[in-house]
Amino acid sequence: MVESAKNVTACLLIIGNEILSGRTKDANLNFLALELNKLGVQLRECRVIPDVEQTVVDTVNEVRGKFDYVFTTGGIGPTHDDITADCIAKAFGVGISEHPEAVARMTRHYGDPALFTPSRRRMARIPHGGVLVDNPVSIAPGFQMENVFTFAGIPKIMQAMFESMKHRLVGGAPVISRTVRTNLPEGIIAEPLGALQKRFEDLDIGSYPGFRNGKVSVSLVLRGTDDARLAAASNELIDTLKKMNGEAEEFVQ
Amino acid sequence: MVESAKNVTACLLIIGNEILSGRTKDANLNFLALELNKLGVQLRECRVIPDVEQTVVDTVNEVRGKFDYVFTTGGIGPTHDDITADCIAKAFGVGISEHPEAVARMTRHYGDPALFTPSRRRMARIPHGGVLVDNPVSIAPGFQMENVFTFAGIPKIMQAMFESMKHRLVGGAPVISRTVRTNLPEGIIAEPLGALQKRFEDLDIGSYPGFRNGKVSVSLVLRGTDDARLAAASNELIDTLKKMNGEAEEFVQ
Repeated sequence: MVESAKNVTACLLIIGNEILSGRTKDANLNFLALELNKLGVQLRECRVIPDVEQTVVDTVNEVRGKFDYVFTTGGIGPTHDDITADCIAKAFGVGISEHPEAVARMTRHYGDPALFTPSRRRMARIPHGGVLVDNPVSIAPGFQMENVFTFAGIPKIMQAMFESMKHRLVGGAPVISRTVRTNLPEGIIAEPLGALQKRFEDLDIGSYPGFRNGKVSVSLVLRGTDDARLAAASNELIDTLKKMNGEAEEFVQ
Repeated sequence: MVESAKNVTACLLIIGNEILSGRTKDANLNFLALELNKLGVQLRECRVIPDVEQTVVDTVNEVRGKFDYVFTTGGIGPTHDDITADCIAKAFGVGISEHPEAVARMTRHYGDPALFTPSRRRMARIPHGGVLVDNPVSIAPGFQMENVFTFAGIPKIMQAMFESMKHRLVGGAPVISRTVRTNLPEGIIAEPLGALQKRFEDLDIGSYPGFRNGKVSVSLVLRGTDDARLAAASNELIDTLKKMNGEAEEFVQ
């Protein structure tokens, strides 16, 4: 992976039996990967784990020391299988109780006290020391404990929570990319491509085969933080592909 | 999670910078979760990790001791960023070299020796002791090392590889599920639902809110290995929802 001058890393924990059983397809990994990248934060690992207390607690404690930022999604609703907030409190060794500001927001939102049920009040419980993360969609907040951000799992709410807190993240140089698409198969271009990667060790050159209009199409993706270096490597690559009588179409992203 | 009489567990390692950068959306997790479930194997964890040798080696060694089966996807193509086979060899402390049967299959497939390039020959390198996994799509095989199965990342190839080897897996009792859909919001049904989960500790009851035709819709999913228990819990749940004047529509899956 690209190592930028100031390398800021992140890990995503997707908490939920429904992803592991195949019932639900995750949509948060791809969103977060792209959004963090824009802020100069590199997503370096993602784990999908079940709603099992010890697993969540141990995993949070393992990854919060290894990465600059940790994001969790899922398990902060009102039902018995929503155990994430309690697990985060346990991981940090703190208590958990109703947060006055969370209660105030939810009281306003539900209006009729009969609708602000004990189950919904559970969603106002925040680990001690936690800073709220706004939820403009359904009000019940997420929260930040040090470098760990806890979001809802529903993509629409998760994305709104991320938008509301992303100014708190301090990233490094954003990673930019150039993509060169060719009709030459991987097995033919692998050698010159490997040689190019050796000459440009500061870049991350990936090769992703696929199909386009029924024909082989390989996307060669160059990633790095210095656009001049990317341009130099991309130009060399295009020359090489053309000398091999291949197509070479560049996309700057 | 449901604990069946004979609990067979699995972990998926998705190896690839392209998933973590957001360039590519993974499709293998959902496929494998559903297919393993049919065989009585429970996917308990999934990790997405970068193409970094030490990370891959350490992660493989951590999870192959923790789970009955480990599946890896990605990183077995012909280019410089395809390092999975070498990492698996290192994790198991064995050498790696061309596998005669893999070479034979690929020689037949490419026909013209000029097309069977040194880069493509790299795909015939298998860790010593590895058993081939057939690849009916593009021939270059995957492989099995003890309880670790290494597949390609391209979904079409990954799925064909899984089909070709799934008879090697020994599962426990398959987990079956019943889903009850209701129009009552989670915050209203959370208490009776939690009480139901306490009475049916052998089942895994999940609550997944969403929208359906623009209205709140909650899917209550009961999972377990004993259909009589599932039916009993599902009937109780339907009664409860109806007493609360809610809709309760059952789906058996």
